[in-house]
Amino acid sequence: MPHIALPEGIPGIRGPMMFRPETAKPLNELAEVLLRGPSTLSPGERELIATYVSVRNDCTYCHSIHGAIAAHHLDGNEELVQSVRMDCEQAAIPEKMKALLAIAGKVQLGGKNVTAADVERARGLGATDLEIHDTVLIAAMFCLCNRYVDGLATWAPEDPDFYRQRAALVADVGYSAATVTPGIPARPPK
Amino acid sequence: MPHIALPEGIPGIRGPMMFRPETAKPLNELAEVLLRGPSTLSPGERELIATYVSVRNDCTYCHSIHGAIAAHHLDGNEELVQSVRMDCEQAAIPEKMKALLAIAGKVQLGGKNVTAADVERARGLGATDLEIHDTVLIAAMFCLCNRYVDGLATWAPEDPDFYRQRAALVADVGYSAATVTPGIPARPPK
Repeated sequence: MPHIALPEGIPGIRGPMMFRPETAKPLNELAEVLLRGPSTLSPGERELIATYVSVRNDCTYCHSIHGAIAAHHLDGNEELVQSVRMDCEQAAIPEKMKALLAIAGKVQLGGKNVTAADVERARGLGATDLEIHDTVLIAAMFCLCNRYVDGLATWAPEDPDFYRQRAALVADVGYSAATVTPGIPARPPK
Repeated sequence: MPHIALPEGIPGIRGPMMFRPETAKPLNELAEVLLRGPSTLSPGERELIATYVSVRNDCTYCHSIHGAIAAHHLDGNEELVQSVRMDCEQAAIPEKMKALLAIAGKVQLGGKNVTAADVERARGLGATDLEIHDTVLIAAMFCLCNRYVDGLATWAPEDPDFYRQRAALVADVGYSAATVTPGIPARPPK
């Protein structure tokens, strides 16, 4: 049961976003730029960063939906996404991505945990300043989203198909449009 | 020394914002709505929430600038702001603000720390659902900003007058305009 009176039947961040459209607008614009805008990191790679930070913040809704979006972009490879959730250093992803995820994990703990050595490791594996910047900001953004979702005690559907279908919708229309698109029915637990 | 090549001489969040104006735009719009938009919480009260979260995240730049903006809005009462930084339950602020700051402090630790009792306390002291929502989102937003500022190892001026003068500028023109306004000179430490 959410801590405040949110629109009924709307899971995760979409409840507070419908409650407060004035703040939803810039939040969705930030997600659009960071996760779907022009970048040398693929949308799948950026969604992996979002998923990795969200699972470390124990945010079920966020790691489920962004993991599903990552898998959607990565040829449906849910096993790969799950391996990043569990232990990104052992996952079958490029070394550069492991270094960027390590930076994201440090940001999740607190910005001052990121060291020059962490950044040098990523740079040595080919990461650009813009990729390092965006990794830090994606990680920071999900420290916002995870706290927004759980700080208001929103609910998260349990059915993996819910997330798969929302993922396809988000990949198709983007974050801003998907927020106000009902998609498949989802009801909160009784 | 910042982890990536940011514009020289620009402190705190403004360096990465100038480096990446595409993400600065929605971030500043979010700050405008949350901290300066129409609200039953005064701008000073909202800046106190930003300051309180930032000091708990040990982010010198953010708690210095938002503390200075809070003081600017609160008749220059820097002592009051400092007392909120140190121990908000003992500060000379309304009981409702103490309850909202307690929620913000829980969000800083992680969203799931917020309890129904925390929310009931605030509601019992007159807080509305919108005020509770905005408190959670302001706290979450500064968990982003603090990590963005420190995750890239930006620098923070030591001179309190720097923050006082920037605070007056932000209070006057707002976040979006202030980001690209040089204001008083500030140089990074040698």
